[in-house]
Amino acid sequence: MSEVEITIREAIPDDAGNLLSVSRQIAEETDFLIMDEVGLGLNEEMLSLQLADLYESENNILLLALADKKIIGMASVKSAPEFTVTHIGEIGISVIKEFWGIGLGSALLDEVIYWSEHVSSLRRLELTVQKRNERAIHLYQKFGFNIEATMERGARDVQGAFLDVLLMSKMIN
Amino acid sequence: MSEVEITIREAIPDDAGNLLSVSRQIAEETDFLIMDEVGLGLNEEMLSLQLADLYESENNILLLALADKKIIGMASVKSAPEFTVTHIGEIGISVIKEFWGIGLGSALLDEVIYWSEHVSSLRRLELTVQKRNERAIHLYQKFGFNIEATMERGARDVQGAFLDVLLMSKMIN
Repeated sequence: MSEVEITIREAIPDDAGNLLSVSRQIAEETDFLIMDEVGLGLNEEMLSLQLADLYESENNILLLALADKKIIGMASVKSAPEFTVTHIGEIGISVIKEFWGIGLGSALLDEVIYWSEHVSSLRRLELTVQKRNERAIHLYQKFGFNIEATMERGARDVQGAFLDVLLMSKMIN
Repeated sequence: MSEVEITIREAIPDDAGNLLSVSRQIAEETDFLIMDEVGLGLNEEMLSLQLADLYESENNILLLALADKKIIGMASVKSAPEFTVTHIGEIGISVIKEFWGIGLGSALLDEVIYWSEHVSSLRRLELTVQKRNERAIHLYQKFGFNIEATMERGARDVQGAFLDVLLMSKMIN
């Protein structure tokens, strides 16, 4: 792989088309995800409207990692609107296979934690990760996430075998 | 309270109007809920269409408890469409205050577990409940739910104080 410059920035409505195609690619490349994150099933116009809302939202964000204008990874934080739980942000991170192993997941996670601590009003971050995905778990632990639960049958693989899923969280103060 | 006959049945599209008003009532009466369950924010027509979909769904259900045609409680099971997680059903139960303490929550829970075991293809039931809601926790334990996690800051009360929330689950075989 020749040298490319990678930038990380917040998604804007014009990213909708590229986001849809990269989401499909990531869904095909990995067994670790539940792929509903970036509105698969939406058309480009609807996604574009959602991205505009997201851009204005206090406790929701979508960050994109780009190499020469191509989306190669993303990080999202989602929170529900109800007051009783809107301090909780659910994190999702995904990177296209070609760019695995170069620290991009770590860079994206660093950015969303920074945003959570300095821009949002979030007070709890949480995520779920398959127990077999040890690299991801170590990454989350490195950034201060603790395991709160092992969820029995929290997912299953394409053959239908049940998988343990960890619930991890990090408090924001 | 004079004697009334209580029936439990699956919701149908014509219930939409009554559902919206009772959902508002329940949201005002209790601090224990995150009230997004029955499509608050939807209008009657949209909710009616959702109820039609729900009625046909294999792993989603909405049960209503009625006293003389008035909705006095409900139980829902929701599952995501993705294959990797569609075996997981999330349970929500709510009862209007006038009918607390007569075993209606227990009857609703019994019905949704029966449906989960005999009609759906669900293999894991899960729910979240505030740790201070001891009556509900005991009920869930009585029906075979185990505590998987104590989620720190899993909710907050109307004054903004953080609350522990339990994640509970029950396997279906």
